[in-house]
Amino acid sequence: MREPGRHLHEHDLAALAIGAALLGTGGGGNPYIGSLRTRDQLRRHGPLRIIRLADLPDDALVASVGGIGAPVVGIEKFEQGEECLRALQALEAHMGVKVDALIAAEMGGANSMEPLLTAAQAGLPVVDGDGMGRAFPEVQMCTYFIYGHEATPAAMADEKGNIVLYTAMSDATTLERHARATCVVMGAAAGMANRPMSGRYVKEVAVPDTLTLALNIGRAVLAARRDRTDPVEAVLQTTPGKRIFNGKVVDVHRELKGGFAVGEARLTGSGPNDGDDALVNIQNENLLFQRNGNIEITVPDLIVIVEADTAEPITTEQLRYGQRVEVLALPCHPLLRTAAALEYIGPAAFGYPDVAFQPLEIPDMETP
Amino acid sequence: MREPGRHLHEHDLAALAIGAALLGTGGGGNPYIGSLRTRDQLRRHGPLRIIRLADLPDDALVASVGGIGAPVVGIEKFEQGEECLRALQALEAHMGVKVDALIAAEMGGANSMEPLLTAAQAGLPVVDGDGMGRAFPEVQMCTYFIYGHEATPAAMADEKGNIVLYTAMSDATTLERHARATCVVMGAAAGMANRPMSGRYVKEVAVPDTLTLALNIGRAVLAARRDRTDPVEAVLQTTPGKRIFNGKVVDVHRELKGGFAVGEARLTGSGPNDGDDALVNIQNENLLFQRNGNIEITVPDLIVIVEADTAEPITTEQLRYGQRVEVLALPCHPLLRTAAALEYIGPAAFGYPDVAFQPLEIPDMETP
Repeated sequence: MREPGRHLHEHDLAALAIGAALLGTGGGGNPYIGSLRTRDQLRRHGPLRIIRLADLPDDALVASVGGIGAPVVGIEKFEQGEECLRALQALEAHMGVKVDALIAAEMGGANSMEPLLTAAQAGLPVVDGDGMGRAFPEVQMCTYFIYGHEATPAAMADEKGNIVLYTAMSDATTLERHARATCVVMGAAAGMANRPMSGRYVKEVAVPDTLTLALNIGRAVLAARRDRTDPVEAVLQTTPGKRIFNGKVVDVHRELKGGFAVGEARLTGSGPNDGDDALVNIQNENLLFQRNGNIEITVPDLIVIVEADTAEPITTEQLRYGQRVEVLALPCHPLLRTAAALEYIGPAAFGYPDVAFQPLEIPDMETP
Repeated sequence: MREPGRHLHEHDLAALAIGAALLGTGGGGNPYIGSLRTRDQLRRHGPLRIIRLADLPDDALVASVGGIGAPVVGIEKFEQGEECLRALQALEAHMGVKVDALIAAEMGGANSMEPLLTAAQAGLPVVDGDGMGRAFPEVQMCTYFIYGHEATPAAMADEKGNIVLYTAMSDATTLERHARATCVVMGAAAGMANRPMSGRYVKEVAVPDTLTLALNIGRAVLAARRDRTDPVEAVLQTTPGKRIFNGKVVDVHRELKGGFAVGEARLTGSGPNDGDDALVNIQNENLLFQRNGNIEITVPDLIVIVEADTAEPITTEQLRYGQRVEVLALPCHPLLRTAAALEYIGPAAFGYPDVAFQPLEIPDMETP
């Protein structure tokens, strides 16, 4: 593929880590560890070519790769570094193909980086987009599978060189169940590569330009910190959304359940929210935002918890008592709001059958 | 392969089911359901060719296939019938080979039958032998892996058509962990096919003639029942062993743990054992026999519980309060008594680090 593209450099990673972790709504793994690992690969292999969706040839073969596991575990059990590459190579060998580009399944601290470092290792470009425009905990929750891509073959690999191939699965939800069980055996952190898609299909169903968006969010935050302006406001000047809560974390419940980090965080309001309480329900990602017992924001819209002063996104496993935070709500991409999508990523899909998705509407942004 | 062989017919299955379940020491699945499923396949495909180890060409490709799961589940969730065949076919397709014969990984009610019915479906012969000469709960516990056969590739399939391939695993114990996790997702009952072995290797490490032995034990039991002689004595006239306990089941604890049936049975003695108590520790199979608190027989020797009157073997999931039983002890094959083997199938491997294996010695049998 000789189409025009931009390049991602080592010096972009700090901004990308912030923006992707913010879009990750608490999930997608630790951004710091993700960016360190990616930096190492970019240093070794040079800058990475990024392809816009519009420039992707229809017949290109594009595979999504990513880490799978509980983010809590990802902090202590670092990946060896070639998990996704090995999964990708096993998949290519099994299918007898070579893919032309990689794409993220989700945006999130580590999982937006995983395709980048794997692409660096494999000498492949990365597509500017992903399958969620945020992070979700399960494989079938990305637009690729929601809109009909075959679930198999898929491959998983761990740091010891163990490889599992899924060659026939009823659907992506079954693949998820199997991958999760395998992931637990692999120590709750592994790499996964999914059946390659055509460029034509990716252009239809991928959430576009999310690498660029993450980069821009991160750059805005870093600039605001440098200029001592409000970094939270800088986020909302970059992408539509609103501030919904200012306060302090007063309680965090979090446990590892079947390879997921499940729990909730309680917040007590301050400043404009003095006297209010809030609750955020979590399964790897932030799922529901409740104010004084009323559900206000629901998955798939983005519920983002950031440090109040710095707009540094706080991932699920970093949440702890005493943190001063702001909560932002960002509308999800329209591809996630269709009836087909809500079946997989609406509140009911996460065990809240009585909670309806009430789309967050943000008036058109003024251009900053 | 045109070597001389015998054939297994539908009318052999009743005897085979008894003998194999008896050698299965409580495990290996329900013999009745296993024989019904095999009968169906033999009716469809005709008698099955059985090859003695001595007649197996060195360069033949021999794959072991079997069901994997908790026997308790196998009673209620019948296999659809082609699980092992599909696993075998997926394995052959992945490796680009065709196997020449099948062999059992273990003897046991259902799992000695599984290679037979799969062979009938695939039009292949079955080797007279297995990898345990009894049943064990885990994949790495068969002589094939104990003596160094590569663990991968291996394949698993369920009744819905889902297929998982293991293409790289550190060792057979890791394969077992993965297969068990997959098996739980597959509903605790699935079919598995393992990397084909050379005929030369099978001749070295398989426990020989165990299909014939199972058949002979079953025939002896059936003959004794018909002739109203002692069927338990008939077993001991067919294979070395001894009666160790006569009594009644007074308590059974059994639970499903990670895909295994784990528990214990308490017996109270009668007749020659009046006043004695016994305890049998179980993980799918009977592992330890204790009399009045003293361990007398240990895995890998065979601890067999049969109905006192009929010598009908009682599998783990059929054990219940009030059954009048005899307990027999049979020495395991010498291939299971080496230091290498005991590491995988001695008492310590089952969570009894302080229990030493004390080989049961039986004086040479008189020919009946």
